[in-house]
Amino acid sequence: MESRRGNQMTEEESAARRIQRLSSHISPALTAPSSSSQAPLVQREVCSSRTKKVNVNSQALSVYMRGKHMDVQEKVYEFYNSRPDLQTPIEISKDDHRELCMRQLLGLVREAGVRPFRYVADDPEKYFAIMEAVGSVDMSLGIKLGVQYSRCYNILLDWSNVQGLQTTATFDPITDEFVIDTPNDGAIKWWIGNAAVHGKFATVFARLILPTHDTKGVSDMGVHAFIVPIRDMKTHQTLPGVEIQDCGHKVGLNGVDNGALRFRAVRIPRDNLLNRFGDVSRDGKYTSSLPTINKRFGATLGELVGGRVGLAYASVGVLKISATIAIRYSLLRQQFGPPKQPEVSILDYQSQQHKLMPMLASTYAYHFATVYLVEKYSEMKRTHDEQLVADVHALSAGLKSYITSYTAKSLSVCREACGGHGYAAVNRFGSLRNDHDIFQTFEGDNTVLLQQVAADLLKRYKEKFQGGTLTATWSYLRESMNAYLSQPNPVTARWEGEDHLRDPKFQLDAFRYRTSRLLQSVAMRLTKHTKTLGSFGAWNRCLNHLLTLAESHIESVILAKFIEAVRKCPDPRAKAGLKLACDLYALDHIWKDIGTYRNVDYVAPNKAKAIHKLTEYLSFQVRNVAKELVDAFDLPDHVTRAPIAMQSDAYAQYTQVVGF
Amino acid sequence: MESRRGNQMTEEESAARRIQRLSSHISPALTAPSSSSQAPLVQREVCSSRTKKVNVNSQALSVYMRGKHMDVQEKVYEFYNSRPDLQTPIEISKDDHRELCMRQLLGLVREAGVRPFRYVADDPEKYFAIMEAVGSVDMSLGIKLGVQYSRCYNILLDWSNVQGLQTTATFDPITDEFVIDTPNDGAIKWWIGNAAVHGKFATVFARLILPTHDTKGVSDMGVHAFIVPIRDMKTHQTLPGVEIQDCGHKVGLNGVDNGALRFRAVRIPRDNLLNRFGDVSRDGKYTSSLPTINKRFGATLGELVGGRVGLAYASVGVLKISATIAIRYSLLRQQFGPPKQPEVSILDYQSQQHKLMPMLASTYAYHFATVYLVEKYSEMKRTHDEQLVADVHALSAGLKSYITSYTAKSLSVCREACGGHGYAAVNRFGSLRNDHDIFQTFEGDNTVLLQQVAADLLKRYKEKFQGGTLTATWSYLRESMNAYLSQPNPVTARWEGEDHLRDPKFQLDAFRYRTSRLLQSVAMRLTKHTKTLGSFGAWNRCLNHLLTLAESHIESVILAKFIEAVRKCPDPRAKAGLKLACDLYALDHIWKDIGTYRNVDYVAPNKAKAIHKLTEYLSFQVRNVAKELVDAFDLPDHVTRAPIAMQSDAYAQYTQVVGF
Repeated sequence: MESRRGNQMTEEESAARRIQRLSSHISPALTAPSSSSQAPLVQREVCSSRTKKVNVNSQALSVYMRGKHMDVQEKVYEFYNSRPDLQTPIEISKDDHRELCMRQLLGLVREAGVRPFRYVADDPEKYFAIMEAVGSVDMSLGIKLGVQYSRCYNILLDWSNVQGLQTTATFDPITDEFVIDTPNDGAIKWWIGNAAVHGKFATVFARLILPTHDTKGVSDMGVHAFIVPIRDMKTHQTLPGVEIQDCGHKVGLNGVDNGALRFRAVRIPRDNLLNRFGDVSRDGKYTSSLPTINKRFGATLGELVGGRVGLAYASVGVLKISATIAIRYSLLRQQFGPPKQPEVSILDYQSQQHKLMPMLASTYAYHFATVYLVEKYSEMKRTHDEQLVADVHALSAGLKSYITSYTAKSLSVCREACGGHGYAAVNRFGSLRNDHDIFQTFEGDNTVLLQQVAADLLKRYKEKFQGGTLTATWSYLRESMNAYLSQPNPVTARWEGEDHLRDPKFQLDAFRYRTSRLLQSVAMRLTKHTKTLGSFGAWNRCLNHLLTLAESHIESVILAKFIEAVRKCPDPRAKAGLKLACDLYALDHIWKDIGTYRNVDYVAPNKAKAIHKLTEYLSFQVRNVAKELVDAFDLPDHVTRAPIAMQSDAYAQYTQVVGF
Repeated sequence: MESRRGNQMTEEESAARRIQRLSSHISPALTAPSSSSQAPLVQREVCSSRTKKVNVNSQALSVYMRGKHMDVQEKVYEFYNSRPDLQTPIEISKDDHRELCMRQLLGLVREAGVRPFRYVADDPEKYFAIMEAVGSVDMSLGIKLGVQYSRCYNILLDWSNVQGLQTTATFDPITDEFVIDTPNDGAIKWWIGNAAVHGKFATVFARLILPTHDTKGVSDMGVHAFIVPIRDMKTHQTLPGVEIQDCGHKVGLNGVDNGALRFRAVRIPRDNLLNRFGDVSRDGKYTSSLPTINKRFGATLGELVGGRVGLAYASVGVLKISATIAIRYSLLRQQFGPPKQPEVSILDYQSQQHKLMPMLASTYAYHFATVYLVEKYSEMKRTHDEQLVADVHALSAGLKSYITSYTAKSLSVCREACGGHGYAAVNRFGSLRNDHDIFQTFEGDNTVLLQQVAADLLKRYKEKFQGGTLTATWSYLRESMNAYLSQPNPVTARWEGEDHLRDPKFQLDAFRYRTSRLLQSVAMRLTKHTKTLGSFGAWNRCLNHLLTLAESHIESVILAKFIEAVRKCPDPRAKAGLKLACDLYALDHIWKDIGTYRNVDYVAPNKAKAIHKLTEYLSFQVRNVAKELVDAFDLPDHVTRAPIAMQSDAYAQYTQVVGF
C-alpha cells in the first residue's frame, strides 16, 4: 500500500483526522506508583471523598456576563465564519498578512456593515465589544482596528517619554500652517501602527512652538497632538518631507504594519491641531481652558487612556479563548486511571486542576473588573468629571498591566497543559501568545504603569492624612488603614471554619489589610531613604516593594468587583458557580502570599493550613462545574477554532471520520 | 524629499540602523514621582549606599565553566558564521525550513567535518557540547541532529504510555523476519521527528510476539526496539505497508519534519531487533540477561535517558543566550535618572535586577548541575553500574523538567524586560521561546517526570527505614531527615547576620530541611488517604504536594552542586563572582517559600526580613558584576545575533551608522 505523503489534505483537515484518533489514542493504565489497592472508585471521587456538586446554569450565567453587546459580537463572528477567504491561514508571510488584515478590516466595515468608528466616542462599551470579537478572528485585526479607528494606539511604545519628546510643531503665521520637524534620529518614533504600509495620516505628538515678540522669539507651549498626512490620498505615495521606515518582522501581530516616522519641515494647516485642550488663533495667540503645561499634558495623555482600557478588555478576551481551549481539551482527553477502572479525564488530576482552575476563576474576576472599567471609562467620556478622570487613569494603568501580565503567563501554562497537541499550530496557543505578548509593553510598559499606580496610592495616602477626599476605587483605604494600624485580632487569626474562610468580608479584609500594610511600610521607607539617596534613589531602592503594593491594590479592586458581581447575580444557579470561582480566586491569592500574613500573625499556622486545604478543595469543586463555567463564555467552535477543543457534538463527529 | 519606503535594506541592516538610534533615543528625565531632592549621586549608588564591588575575572571564569569542549563548539560557531547561506532567515516557510535544516546538518557533517555520531556512545560530553552549539544556530537543527544521530528523540511525545503501546513485532520463523503491525488508528505514533520528509529508518517500539508451541500459540515478550526502513534508500519513496502523515505546522521547531507512522504487515530482517537487552535466535528462542518484562522495559527506557540529559543541557544553552541578550541590552540601554544627572542603565533599576539577576544566578546553577548530570551519564554509559542507572534516571527526569520549565518562563521575562525592542523578531526571543517551548513536553511531560522523581524519593524513604543504601544524589536525606524529625533550633532560627545567611551550610540545611519535611509529610498523607481512596486516588489527592517535593529535592541537588563548584574554583576572582551568584540563588529560593519556613519557626520573623533584604542587596551586587558573569558564558555576537545585545565595540560601530 502506498503512503499518502503527497496527500492533498489541508492542515485543518489533517488536524481533524488527528482529533479523531486522539479519542482512541489511549492505552491501558501504566503508572500509579505502588498501586496495590483495587478499591472501586467513582471517577469524580478520585480527588475527594466530598462529592456534593454545585449545580450551575451556564445559560443564565452567560446572559449575566455578556450583557447587551452579544448581538454585535455574534454579527462579527458570523461574518468571518461565512468568509473563509478572510480567515488567516496558519502559514502566511508578513507582507501577505498585512494585506489580508487590511482586507479583513475593509470587509467588516464595507460588507458586514459594522462601523466601529461611530462608537468610539458615543458608545465605548459597544466599541470594545466589537474589538474583542474582531481580536478573536485575528489579534492583528483587533489592533489594526484600534489604530485605524480610535487613534488610541498610534503612539510610541515607550510612551512614558512623551513629555520629553523633541519633535516640534512651529506655527508659521504667514502661511497659517504648522511646520513639523524631527530634529534628530533619536527623536524618531518607532512602532507606529499602520505607518509602514497603509496609513494616510498620523497623529503626531509634538511640542507646540509659537513665535513671540519678546527677546526669546519663541515660546514652547508643551506637547500637543496634530494630524499629519503622510501619504497622498490618491497615489498613496509618501508625501514630501516624510520619511517612513518599516519596523519589519515582529514576534507576533505581523498583520499590523509598524513603521518609524521622521518629519523634515512638513507643513500642515493650522486646523490639524487637535484643539480640545489648547488652540491657536489665526494671529498666533494661544488659548486653553487649562492653565499650565503640565495640566494640558495630563489632559492630552488622558485621551490615551482608551488604549489601556481596550488592551485590558481584549486581554481578558484572549484569556477566555485560551482557558476555554485548554479546559475543554482537558475534559475530553482521558489518561490513566485506577486499576481496572475507566480512564479519567486529565482535568481530574489535581496537578491539572492546579494549573487551570485558579486561571478559570481569574478569568471571571478580570471579566467583571474590565466591564466595570469600561463602564467608568464611558462615564468619564460623558461627564469629564475630574475625580473620575483620575480614577480611570490609575485603574486602567493597573488593570492593563496586571491582567496582560497574567494572560501572557497563562498562555504558556495552557500550551503546556495540553502537551504535544498544544504545540500543533492549529491549536492556536502559539499565535495567541505571540500576538498577545506585546500587550505587556505597549500603551505603557507594565512595570512603568504599576509605578504610576503606586505613585497614585502614595498621593492618596498623603491626602488622607490631610483630610482630603478619596476617589471611589480608593476609598476602602481609609477603613483598612485603620485596621492595619491596630494589631491583628488574635481571635479571628485562629478562625478556620469554611464559612469564615468563604465569607467575602474575611477575604476582602485580608486583601485590603495587605495593601494597607504595604502602603504604610513603603511610605515610611521612602521617607527614610529620601534623606540619604534623594527621591530618585529612594524610589528605586523601594521599587520591588512599590510594585508589590500596586499589584496588591489592583487585586483588592478586582476582588471587590467580583464579590459585587456575585452578590448582584439574579439567577441562583448562575450565582452558585460564580461564588465558587470567587472564593477560589480570593483564597488562592491569600495562600500565595501566606508568608506575609503569617509574619504578622494575621493568620495562625493552622488557619494557614486550612486556607491551603480549602483552596485545593475549591479547585476540585470548580473542576466539577468547569464545563458550565467555560460554556458561559459562549465561545462557539468557529471562534475557538482549535480542533482539540471542539465541543462534545463536534468532537463526536470528528471521531467518525475514518483514518488516513 | 522622497521617502525610502521601497528601500532595499535587509531586515538585519535595518535592525542595525535601529540600534544606532537606540543609543540616542532618550530624552530628559520625566518620572521619579515627587522628585525634590537634588542630591548628587554616583550612578552605581542609585540602589545602595554600600558600594563595594566584587572584582570578577571573567576569562578565568569562562575557562573554568566551559572546560575541554570549547574547541569543537568554536568550530561549529565558525562554520556557520562563515556560511550565511546556511543561516535561518527570519521569515521562512515550513517546507523551506525543513530543507534548510537538512542542508545545515549535511554541511556540518560533510563540510565542517563535525561528526556527532561517533561521540554519542564514546564521548557523550563532547556530543552534548556539539548539540548545544548547533542548537544556538537554529534549535530545529539541534533537535534534528538529536533525532538523526542519537536516536534519543524519535519516540512519541506521550512516551509515558510506551508500556501500553499496541504495535506488535511478530516473529515469522519461516522467513526469519519480524512482521510489524499497528492494529488500529489509536496506536499510531505521532510527532516522530524526521518522519514526515527526510527519515529513511525509524526506531519503532513494539511488543515482541513469539510463536509458542503451547495452547496460546504466541507469547508477548514485552516492549522492544526495532529498526524499520520507512523509505527506499535510492528513490526515497515510502515503502509498502508504511503510511506516513505529516504533523504539519508546530508552534516552533518547524525545521524538524514530524510525522505519524502506521505499519501494515511490514517485514524486517530479524537482525533489526535492537538486541541489547533481549534477543531472538534463528529458531525463535528468546534470550535475555534480564529476567522479567518489567526489567527489560526499564532497561529499554533507560536508553532513552540520553534524550532527557540532552534537553536539560540544551535548555541551559538557550537560557544562557536569552539571559545574555536581555542583560547586555539592559546594560546598554539608559533611561531616566536623578535630576540633573546622567541617565542610568535600565539594569540599575531594582525592578530590572529583580527580573534578571536571580535568572543569571540560576543560569550558573543549572550550568553546573547539567555538567554534573552529563558526567554521571557518561560514567553510567561506561560502567552500567546499577545504582548509577537509577540515580541518572531520576536525576535526568528531575533536571530536565525543572530546568526546561524555568527556561520557558525566563524567555518570556527576557522579552518583556527588553520592551518593544524585545518584540522585534531579529532580537530572537520569539523564535527561542517558540522552539524551546516543547522541551517541557517531549521526552516526558514535566509534570509526569516530576512524579517519577517523587515516586523515587518515596522509594528511597522506605528503604532508609529498612536500612537500605542510598544513591549518591539522595544520601543527604539520611542526615537531614534526622534534622527534620527534631525541632528547629530556636537559637539559629534567630541568627540573621550576613555571614550566617551566606554560609553554605545554613543554605543547604534550609533547602534539605524543606525537602525532608515535604517527604515526611507526604508519606504520612499518602498512607492515610490510601485507606479510603486507594493508591491511585491517594496519589492524586497529594499530587501538588508530591510535585512540590520533587522540585524541592531538585533544588537541593542543584544548590549542592553549585556550592561544590564555588568551592572547587581555582581562581579567586572567578570564585568571588560565583559565590555572589550562588548566595543569590540560595537566598532567593528560601525567600520564595518563606511561608513554609515561618510556619514551623525554622526562621524567626526578623530573620525572614533579613533574608529578603539580603536577597535584594545580592541582586544589586550581582548586577555590578553582571557584565563579567555574562561575558564568561563566552557567547560572541555572531552566536547571540540579536542586534540589541551587541557588545560594546560592535555597539559603538552601530552608533556610527547614519540614519536612514
